[in-house]
Amino acid sequence: MPQAALIAHLQTAVTQQDEARIAQLAPRLQAADLADVLRDEKPKMSRMVLNQLDQAQQAAVFGYLPLKLQRRIMKKMSLDAAAHLLSYMDSDERADLFKKMDEAWQTQVLKLMAQEKREDLRRMASYAEDTAGAIMTSEYASIPESVNVGEALDIVRHTAPDAETISRIFVLDEQQVLLGMVKLRDLILATPNTPVSHIMETDIAAIATDQDQEEAVRLISRYDLLTLPVVDKQHRLVGIVTHDDAMDVAEEEATEDMLKSSTVGNLESSLSEASLFILYRKRIVWLVLLVFANIVSAAGIALYEDTIAQYIVLVFFLPLLVGSAGNAGSQASTLMVRGLATGDVRLKDWGKMFGREFVVALGLGVTMALAVSLIGAARGGLPIAMVVAFSMVAVVMIGSLVGMTLPFLLNRVGWDPATASAPLVATIADAVGVLVYFSIATAVLGL
Amino acid sequence: MPQAALIAHLQTAVTQQDEARIAQLAPRLQAADLADVLRDEKPKMSRMVLNQLDQAQQAAVFGYLPLKLQRRIMKKMSLDAAAHLLSYMDSDERADLFKKMDEAWQTQVLKLMAQEKREDLRRMASYAEDTAGAIMTSEYASIPESVNVGEALDIVRHTAPDAETISRIFVLDEQQVLLGMVKLRDLILATPNTPVSHIMETDIAAIATDQDQEEAVRLISRYDLLTLPVVDKQHRLVGIVTHDDAMDVAEEEATEDMLKSSTVGNLESSLSEASLFILYRKRIVWLVLLVFANIVSAAGIALYEDTIAQYIVLVFFLPLLVGSAGNAGSQASTLMVRGLATGDVRLKDWGKMFGREFVVALGLGVTMALAVSLIGAARGGLPIAMVVAFSMVAVVMIGSLVGMTLPFLLNRVGWDPATASAPLVATIADAVGVLVYFSIATAVLGL
Repeated sequence: MPQAALIAHLQTAVTQQDEARIAQLAPRLQAADLADVLRDEKPKMSRMVLNQLDQAQQAAVFGYLPLKLQRRIMKKMSLDAAAHLLSYMDSDERADLFKKMDEAWQTQVLKLMAQEKREDLRRMASYAEDTAGAIMTSEYASIPESVNVGEALDIVRHTAPDAETISRIFVLDEQQVLLGMVKLRDLILATPNTPVSHIMETDIAAIATDQDQEEAVRLISRYDLLTLPVVDKQHRLVGIVTHDDAMDVAEEEATEDMLKSSTVGNLESSLSEASLFILYRKRIVWLVLLVFANIVSAAGIALYEDTIAQYIVLVFFLPLLVGSAGNAGSQASTLMVRGLATGDVRLKDWGKMFGREFVVALGLGVTMALAVSLIGAARGGLPIAMVVAFSMVAVVMIGSLVGMTLPFLLNRVGWDPATASAPLVATIADAVGVLVYFSIATAVLGL
Repeated sequence: MPQAALIAHLQTAVTQQDEARIAQLAPRLQAADLADVLRDEKPKMSRMVLNQLDQAQQAAVFGYLPLKLQRRIMKKMSLDAAAHLLSYMDSDERADLFKKMDEAWQTQVLKLMAQEKREDLRRMASYAEDTAGAIMTSEYASIPESVNVGEALDIVRHTAPDAETISRIFVLDEQQVLLGMVKLRDLILATPNTPVSHIMETDIAAIATDQDQEEAVRLISRYDLLTLPVVDKQHRLVGIVTHDDAMDVAEEEATEDMLKSSTVGNLESSLSEASLFILYRKRIVWLVLLVFANIVSAAGIALYEDTIAQYIVLVFFLPLLVGSAGNAGSQASTLMVRGLATGDVRLKDWGKMFGREFVVALGLGVTMALAVSLIGAARGGLPIAMVVAFSMVAVVMIGSLVGMTLPFLLNRVGWDPATASAPLVATIADAVGVLVYFSIATAVLGL
């Protein structure tokens, strides 16, 4: 039965609370798919379904559930069952969940866990959020430097069930210091009595536990790594970041960047799990700041109150002109923010990029001026058409050039270029646009 | 010597055109780092540096260069050298480059390649852009179903040098139809005479050559895969998509989404490589459309010309109010676009999300109304303060609710929710904002 059909059947069985049918179907689903079904159910139902699985499957499915739901289910479990389930989870997911539980629960559950798992959990839970330490897993395969290929394969065979991956095996000295890495592929290809030191790669990338998780993603992506070793201050291996965790982090970071580009702060959780107050708090800061920034535009208008009183028709084109400046500017800033983020554009390219943007923005401005001057002529005759057309070229060029420059400036002073969000660029473009529009109007209309 | 120092030394050697030193340093750099140095050099210099490497290294570095530069260097090479370099490249990168060359060149170079590589290249180059076929590699490891573990390992040992990864080995029947997959790890753990059919996994995800590359990324990310098999219409294995290629595509797709969110069309190349005309063309469409959409706001203003003539001070708050509506709306739309893209929010969640947004937007609107009413009171006394405060709550709520709903609507009719870009939402919010503001003003001021 294909997965889609299995999922549909399980959903029906869950709705009908048909325990026998659930017991028959659940073990056959992929963990990610089963978790997807459980997301919509009550914690009680989720626990019932999970109980139909063996411990390893339970732990796998559990790890795919949203953290908030994991927490709710775990709180309802007996401490013994909770400790047991935790032991079967991946070390990084285990630590993430553990950190979310209250202290009394943590103390009690720790006591019920085997010493090795307990120490691992304590250590893993100690790394700060968003660091390489927080996303690594401690389940890696390692061998001493002194062994030969045959011995190495024997060790790997023994550690395989506990290691997240054995495709990359790390070579350590007696103090656990990272010396190099061998690929399982090379162990298979070499003759058994070859010393491991002959085939190991020593020039490998590694990251410190307290470095940013983004740096881990960057290294994995740049060097096409399967796993990135994580080391402590003494260069001892303490964990690995795997390609799939890096992919999850990359998605998280892309979300953060996109939200930042529309002035929403980092939610630290998914949208559906965030509380209403968190959502309010993460959005209000920039909105209020932009209200005050907008007063500059308002002051600009106050400056030209007489001009406006004489030509009310000028107000007609105001939202259109400042809107266009903002739109062109946000295009330019997004292009640069993303170019800088992916490494396609570098700080030193500003001059070249400015020149390119100048030409493109001129083209955009002239085209839009043609479009808008027709409306201007219809509404206010030739003089108004001229004012609007000149203003359009000017504000689109200014908006674009400000929009493309801001990310470079922010990067230069050490801020995240994504702070040059569309709304910020639009607000700046608004203020400049108002001033440019009314000064051109005053000049052309001879006021 | 650490990589950073090696890179710096090589850069100096390249600047000084010190060929001997280059020959000594270049082979010690990681391919990605060496490519980064060459990006800034003239094609002639790049060719000189590449010549210091062996064929496999050359091909690896070459694959990391921007496609435009690859093309320029390759055009300057002799046909023999080009064919030789192509043979050493990864099958997917080879096909990408080949497609960019002109037809006469293609015909001549194909003749110079070994038959196997030639056929592979022809086939790989035939898949449409952005499909699974276009990002897959044909270098996979496979075994027949009938062998045992010992025999399987022997086959893997033979094919290893040609396969991009042997961590996942695909099991095929005589017609190359995909039956299942074994992990190298499981081969190592099993006894040599175990039949492969006993340990292979049959319930594995696969994708068709003509499916979207985004679907390949989704499957790899969802099921934490190392490689995703790609099959033809007869379910025969034709290639694999590897985790690192999926990561590159995910980055590309994130860029596309971000650009779309500020109304820039898909560039199909990096920002630095795109021609000025392409940049113009990808930006002008929405800008001009939004100019015309903005005429609705303008028409709204025309409707209230008399109100404005009596209270010029109302113009003062116009950019501020419509700007705020646009900002809140673009926050709401980005949150939903991203939630829908990552699967955190589903279509059926619209009602729940609307309720949440209603509460959050009310909070935002009231806070912003308080901020702006102070300015209103200062500029125009209590009546104006009231008009501005009421209008602020109304436009922020309308902007937010329109912004959050638009992505759902677009998704429902089969469009990409990211089309609900900040500028589009802002333009809609502008038009509604103008109408709401002036009707409230007319009502409160008793005009």
